[in-house]
Amino acid sequence: MPDLAAALRDLVAANHILAHEGIVHAYGHISMRHPERPDRFFLAAGCSPETVTLDDIREYDLECKPVLADGHTMYVERPIHGAIFQRRPDVNSVIHNHAHEVIPYSVAKTVRLRPLFITAAAIGAEIPVWDSRDKFRDVGMLVTTMAQGHDLAQRLDRASVALLRGHGSVVTGKSIYDAVHTAVLLRDNAKIQTEAMRFGEITYLDEGEIAKSGGPPQGPNSRAWKYWLARCGDARRRGEGR
Amino acid sequence: MPDLAAALRDLVAANHILAHEGIVHAYGHISMRHPERPDRFFLAAGCSPETVTLDDIREYDLECKPVLADGHTMYVERPIHGAIFQRRPDVNSVIHNHAHEVIPYSVAKTVRLRPLFITAAAIGAEIPVWDSRDKFRDVGMLVTTMAQGHDLAQRLDRASVALLRGHGSVVTGKSIYDAVHTAVLLRDNAKIQTEAMRFGEITYLDEGEIAKSGGPPQGPNSRAWKYWLARCGDARRRGEGR
Amino acid sequence: MPDLAAALRDLVAANHILAHEGIVHAYGHISMRHPERPDRFFLAAGCSPETVTLDDIREYDLECKPVLADGHTMYVERPIHGAIFQRRPDVNSVIHNHAHEVIPYSVAKTVRLRPLFITAAAIGAEIPVWDSRDKFRDVGMLVTTMAQGHDLAQRLDRASVALLRGHGSVVTGKSIYDAVHTAVLLRDNAKIQTEAMRFGEITYLDEGEIAKSGGPPQGPNSRAWKYWLARCGDARRRGEGR
Amino acid sequence: MPDLAAALRDLVAANHILAHEGIVHAYGHISMRHPERPDRFFLAAGCSPETVTLDDIREYDLECKPVLADGHTMYVERPIHGAIFQRRPDVNSVIHNHAHEVIPYSVAKTVRLRPLFITAAAIGAEIPVWDSRDKFRDVGMLVTTMAQGHDLAQRLDRASVALLRGHGSVVTGKSIYDAVHTAVLLRDNAKIQTEAMRFGEITYLDEGEIAKSGGPPQGPNSRAWKYWLARCGDARRRGEGR
Repeated sequence: MPDLAAALRDLVAANHILAHEGIVHAYGHISMRHPERPDRFFLAAGCSPETVTLDDIREYDLECKPVLADGHTMYVERPIHGAIFQRRPDVNSVIHNHAHEVIPYSVAKTVRLRPLFITAAAIGAEIPVWDSRDKFRDVGMLVTTMAQGHDLAQRLDRASVALLRGHGSVVTGKSIYDAVHTAVLLRDNAKIQTEAMRFGEITYLDEGEIAKSGGPPQGPNSRAWKYWLARCGDARRRGEGR
Repeated sequence: MPDLAAALRDLVAANHILAHEGIVHAYGHISMRHPERPDRFFLAAGCSPETVTLDDIREYDLECKPVLADGHTMYVERPIHGAIFQRRPDVNSVIHNHAHEVIPYSVAKTVRLRPLFITAAAIGAEIPVWDSRDKFRDVGMLVTTMAQGHDLAQRLDRASVALLRGHGSVVTGKSIYDAVHTAVLLRDNAKIQTEAMRFGEITYLDEGEIAKSGGPPQGPNSRAWKYWLARCGDARRRGEGR
Repeated sequence: MPDLAAALRDLVAANHILAHEGIVHAYGHISMRHPERPDRFFLAAGCSPETVTLDDIREYDLECKPVLADGHTMYVERPIHGAIFQRRPDVNSVIHNHAHEVIPYSVAKTVRLRPLFITAAAIGAEIPVWDSRDKFRDVGMLVTTMAQGHDLAQRLDRASVALLRGHGSVVTGKSIYDAVHTAVLLRDNAKIQTEAMRFGEITYLDEGEIAKSGGPPQGPNSRAWKYWLARCGDARRRGEGR
Repeated sequence: MPDLAAALRDLVAANHILAHEGIVHAYGHISMRHPERPDRFFLAAGCSPETVTLDDIREYDLECKPVLADGHTMYVERPIHGAIFQRRPDVNSVIHNHAHEVIPYSVAKTVRLRPLFITAAAIGAEIPVWDSRDKFRDVGMLVTTMAQGHDLAQRLDRASVALLRGHGSVVTGKSIYDAVHTAVLLRDNAKIQTEAMRFGEITYLDEGEIAKSGGPPQGPNSRAWKYWLARCGDARRRGEGR
């Protein structure tokens, strides 16, 4: 399975890219649906994205049970991934992150995050906010059960991105390349929107502009992916490893 | 053509400088008019500025057709460069970028970007904003046709800089050294103005101050260029290569 | 005492982590209660955290007198540590820092710092502010006497964190791992809250959410510690040294 | 003159420190009064502080004429240094910089920069603003003549720091160690004050607090200097060179 091996190396690289670009820090994770078995997905064992290696990648079913029960440390918030993969067959990668620039939009009562520059169109016109208080006040804010995961996936619905109140966001993509691109641009749009809103009334992208753009297509040879690989130093390491 | 070879190496360096200073990221590009054939210009093939090497530089005519049709990946927004080179014989370098600090000024309805500190005088007293919605709503926001390029060039008119609504900016210069200097100081002025405007009424440079300053002359041996080269590591690499 | 040796190496690493994460700069310090003698604590001699080595660690009693009077340079604000260790037997590590993002909350007359995202729950629901002016106007703002230290410890009371007006903060923990985690998240919460407050009314964590979360347990093998070690380069150095 | 040689190496290090800490960028300069000839001072030839080496240091008289007329490139704003050294025998180092965080305070009509945290006390209670428009509108904003320098020095008067409207600041010190410390803390105070002012009414240091603190004494072995040396990599280089 040479393709799977390359895909897993790119999943490791995605971890490093997200860490280097400041989207994830100590916490956060990115998953990839198994390219040959859509009822399974890959996710690192419970370590920080910056430190992930190929040996840390584990396989889970869509109920988030490990395929090999080798006693490895696991992210407790795996249900975010499993539930979205169940509900959304079009999604092949999910990122959960606490990007600092995005969190204010998860707690603001009267302001919402909206794409305002063309490259960020892929974040979508409507970004739902999921609040754990609505149904799960008793068990806390972390998404640790499939019931919580399903509720979040339902709130996400057909969107690319959902915010988690007082917590962070989930970002989805047709591929890990798409999901990484959307996660970086979500952060950039949040940062720019926060500054732009100081200036009074501003112009956002309209529905037509979002639909027409949607962002450039992403893949292992796309411009942005190669740029992020180079920045986090994985471009060179990949060359040596292949 | 030893001068041309040196100029092309400096065009590569300009790509690296703009990336290192955070003016361009995955996207953005810088062109240089051919020093001996004013009806042509040089631009990297479709890769991120940070990863550009001498092998990536391509030659185009002012209609943005490649001189050698070798099937290379191309920036779709080449018309920004061709159209400005056609209209402005005084311009020998054009930068298109999405610097985060500048974008808020492209979407604000009541605030405009103006030089407020002496080093930024070269951005000019009046910075026009081009909006793709005015004439090109049907085809989207990217500048992919010569018709869009000409419309943008007309909006730019005699200015050094124009903003593209919800997109970024174009920066022009008599040389790549000028264009890089103006692009960095445009970003710096935007960042500083955003903070200064919090303080209520502020003093901007007046027309006389802008005219008298205009910024220090720029060239391959100017202080700022050598500083930026050193910062992005190209000073050493250049030394090894020559 | 192999455990003590490992603990001291981790205290050195804590200095480097806090410097690398921008919590301390030229000034600031972190102490660790002696794991076998609760009436003593360890603290670096008077150097910046980034430059601390194992040779710089010194032992003090809870009156902040050095156990070995070898004439080393000492932090003048040692009483912060001694006084808190006296009053709070549950505390085994104290950090004093001037993190820039937190200082505004120490001087604001009408705004208070409150946890608004889950990972920052450990900073606690109530963060007291200690003002040297109240009792010590004559001797200045630094905490250089045990009387000042005791007054600050009393203001801290049972909280995890206290702010010092016009100065910085103190952060406590059951372990150095806890204290470092809380100090980083305190800074992150301050940065995010400052942005979020621009958006009008916002939702903070409530008492129940703070109590339920409290943050993940921290130790030498916890995810965040290993991430911070890797980032500041100590992970590799530790490997070589062991 | 071993002391002079060490002092000059520290002047080179001061250039690197100011660049690494983001106080100076392509432009800006730091001078040191000749320790044995108070009617002379040292300043780099016209290069960016980050790139300064010992070979770039030149000697000037207090009228800013070079002692050796070797045709080297010179900073045009030397009169800032010469005029302040003439008026202020207590000053042995002058820094001119365009730190981004400080410039807003130079153009604000109703807000002034004031120390609000203890480490920044050395910037002083009153920070005058010099405006080139008042007397030198005809010749522009740069301080290129001794008449401009004297006018600026008069506006500075007995203060540690003065702002230049739409331009930057001058920072003085009893030594290069003092001047560097004050310049970094001036920047930090500006950054923190800008955030704190969002929170409505805030508490600044009062006159007594400023007088009592004044900041820790600075020298080649002080904590902050060694920290900044380590950060910019000069600590190691110095070790090799001595």
